[in-house]
Amino acid sequence: MDPSEFRLHGHRLVDWIAEYFEHPERYPVLSRVKPGDVRRALPQSAPEQGEPFDRIFADFERVIMPGVTHWNHPGFFAYFPANTCEPAVLGELVAAALNQQAMLWRTSPAATELEEVALGWLRDLMGLPRAFEGVIYDTASVSTLHALAAARERAVPGVRERGMAGRFDLPPLRLYCSEHAHSSVDKATMLLGLGHRALRKIPGDAEFRLRPDALGDAISADRAAGLLPIAVVATIGTTSSTSIDPVPALAQICREENLWLHVDAAYAGVAAIVPEKRAILAGCDRADSFVVNPHKWLFTPVDLSAFYTPHMDILRRAFALTPDYLTTADAGAARNLMDTGIQLGRRFRALKLWMILSHYGSAGLRERLSAHMALAQRFAGWVDDHPDFERVAPVPLSVVCFRARPRGGVWSDDSLDTLNERLIDAVNADGDVFLSHTKLDGRFTLRIAIGHPRTEERHVARAWDLLTDRLARLVPQV
Amino acid sequence: MDPSEFRLHGHRLVDWIAEYFEHPERYPVLSRVKPGDVRRALPQSAPEQGEPFDRIFADFERVIMPGVTHWNHPGFFAYFPANTCEPAVLGELVAAALNQQAMLWRTSPAATELEEVALGWLRDLMGLPRAFEGVIYDTASVSTLHALAAARERAVPGVRERGMAGRFDLPPLRLYCSEHAHSSVDKATMLLGLGHRALRKIPGDAEFRLRPDALGDAISADRAAGLLPIAVVATIGTTSSTSIDPVPALAQICREENLWLHVDAAYAGVAAIVPEKRAILAGCDRADSFVVNPHKWLFTPVDLSAFYTPHMDILRRAFALTPDYLTTADAGAARNLMDTGIQLGRRFRALKLWMILSHYGSAGLRERLSAHMALAQRFAGWVDDHPDFERVAPVPLSVVCFRARPRGGVWSDDSLDTLNERLIDAVNADGDVFLSHTKLDGRFTLRIAIGHPRTEERHVARAWDLLTDRLARLVPQV
Repeated sequence: MDPSEFRLHGHRLVDWIAEYFEHPERYPVLSRVKPGDVRRALPQSAPEQGEPFDRIFADFERVIMPGVTHWNHPGFFAYFPANTCEPAVLGELVAAALNQQAMLWRTSPAATELEEVALGWLRDLMGLPRAFEGVIYDTASVSTLHALAAARERAVPGVRERGMAGRFDLPPLRLYCSEHAHSSVDKATMLLGLGHRALRKIPGDAEFRLRPDALGDAISADRAAGLLPIAVVATIGTTSSTSIDPVPALAQICREENLWLHVDAAYAGVAAIVPEKRAILAGCDRADSFVVNPHKWLFTPVDLSAFYTPHMDILRRAFALTPDYLTTADAGAARNLMDTGIQLGRRFRALKLWMILSHYGSAGLRERLSAHMALAQRFAGWVDDHPDFERVAPVPLSVVCFRARPRGGVWSDDSLDTLNERLIDAVNADGDVFLSHTKLDGRFTLRIAIGHPRTEERHVARAWDLLTDRLARLVPQV
Repeated sequence: MDPSEFRLHGHRLVDWIAEYFEHPERYPVLSRVKPGDVRRALPQSAPEQGEPFDRIFADFERVIMPGVTHWNHPGFFAYFPANTCEPAVLGELVAAALNQQAMLWRTSPAATELEEVALGWLRDLMGLPRAFEGVIYDTASVSTLHALAAARERAVPGVRERGMAGRFDLPPLRLYCSEHAHSSVDKATMLLGLGHRALRKIPGDAEFRLRPDALGDAISADRAAGLLPIAVVATIGTTSSTSIDPVPALAQICREENLWLHVDAAYAGVAAIVPEKRAILAGCDRADSFVVNPHKWLFTPVDLSAFYTPHMDILRRAFALTPDYLTTADAGAARNLMDTGIQLGRRFRALKLWMILSHYGSAGLRERLSAHMALAQRFAGWVDDHPDFERVAPVPLSVVCFRARPRGGVWSDDSLDTLNERLIDAVNADGDVFLSHTKLDGRFTLRIAIGHPRTEERHVARAWDLLTDRLARLVPQV
């Protein structure tokens, strides 16, 4: 593609994206294609001769766009928010053009050092200690994997060299997290060769927070049984209900028991940028590692997971390994990002984060995050005030868990589950909003997660109107 | 940022990138900043008030750009090529705007199915069997990690659930690769809890290819010692010399011994798109897994690693796990990418690959890859014809390994190493080219890796001129 063509198509795409951002509501949030539709609409093999970009983009609009679920729609209320914003898109554009591969400092001093700067800014905004060094990974799954790898490295001397199989000096290991912790903890445990059953799920309290007393009992019982506890994963903002584990008490237990404390604040950590919410990170200064994902609630396109630890040396001990072809003369003076992770290749993720923090400024971020939490409180109020709905969890952040429970009827648990399943399907079929569900106390629960920079009260109100309207259609006596 | 601002800055950036692509040679390939320069030039904390994009971009040009090592420079000959191209940049731009998170089919039918389509196209271009299903990971390190996790899953029943620690039924495990295999094999072995010493490095032959006889002996000795062999990693295009392990013989051994065969073709696999090079993948149809990185020699910006296996069911067995909040009604009909990997979040990487394959077409790719290999042969010819240089490895692909050995002098191995170190530093200091080094047979070796879409003979000739000129300055008698 020659420069004039690149200019032409680049300008067209910029205009197309501006249009897309300006009118996200022209699309149904959730794609309406059926499995196989996209695949079947495309040729089975690559073209022999290259195609003009116009034709490629026409295919994109005809085939790909209908298969897009619009995470950018201000009515996207499912899972956790995962947004993008204009300055971040510009950052990704430049990053793709520069194509930095920051495995070594010398292969991209800019990406290596901007990562340190941007992560330092974010750390300070959240009020974490300056002793927390940062590194960017792709996802929280990979951040948590590294946290538990470091925990294993510290607890099991020689594990890097000797592994765990066929060792008679090594009892089965144990890790602990709440029953509400994210599935990435399970997956990391499996991948690390600890075995899924090494992960003990500790019951939560009535508000879905890990119970320190139950954790203490479990650790004692495991030690008595000859097992070796190595780590606790606390969650700040669990996936189902955004409950906040009592990190100060857990940190105390971890200190006494000499366990690695990893804090998964993938979604909620950024809320600490808001002074009134700073307390959600109480105790995190005593954590051994901490993950927060700007690609969730900080307007950063996937992927960018920020990992912090005061023990970067242990991560290096677990992972550093320099083959001949990657030795450099500056090894002492500069940090090489490849030394603190499983991935050798690293793209220039810091650029978009730096652009976002610079573009919004602390004040702009506080304002937007506060607005999301205020909208969640408003929605919670509507639920609380309605005789046919009930809220099923506290709302500490920007997610509300609730369900329909129409007055008057006699509802079994199962029939209420079925009703709520039908309700969410009816609401999502409309196209204006997309809500997801979970289970709390074993019951089907609806969730609304607010976090898009363009979400306004009217979008949240639209979700509420749809919920009440569709419920009335499903249960006419309401 | 309102739409008019996005348009304004987007258009400016497109023009800036067009300029950058048009005149990459205005920059020294290797950044000339010193460790700490970039960091020190930026504020220590995020601004309180947001900044206009103009000012952010001015900082970018003033502070970040000097810290960029130009992987896009046609004189970037270090490591392996890792390029970008115009249609891929456009693809990344759109991907950042749509911000798909393809954990579930429903969260992005487009990204899920385009991944299948684009990987199918690439598989067919390389001539791999249609039974090879694909999945995109970020890096070859992560692809190889998944391959070895699947190998472990198949070899050690119950490992997902029971792990490896404290099991008296489990002997130490063994994996095998050539002494020239990539460090990602070492790192995966460590992370999986197998222990670094579980990885046995098999000697290569005189042309740096894994010796099947030595592998057979090692397996027999390990079995006799009560160890459990589980996998072999073969490399097609080793990092140092791009040697090609004898996969047909290794596949035979793996079949007889019931071992998982993983093929690391991260750099070289795409060469099979060229019919005359198809033979490099001989035997790969019998592999259990295969990785090739379009983000190396297929003009794809980092990151995009393509992983293929005829045993996707085993990967699923090792990794699938669906929490309540991610259950969907279409679970049977559609493939959910989160089931085949450690990462839950997945960005829309397939888009750029599809755009690249469509833009160049098979013919265009063949032509460019052939041209790179022809340039490598030409360079190898110059080395062979010069009395003061020697080639130290065959050139099957687009990398030439060589070193200076000036005629006349009496050179000890060490003094020759020192001379070549000084030579490469002198050449790289010029700014027109960037070469990297390795060690072969214990000796310091220079490498030139050719793979940039805009590299022409004049760039390769410039490298050669610099080498001969700087050598003459270092060794005046030459």
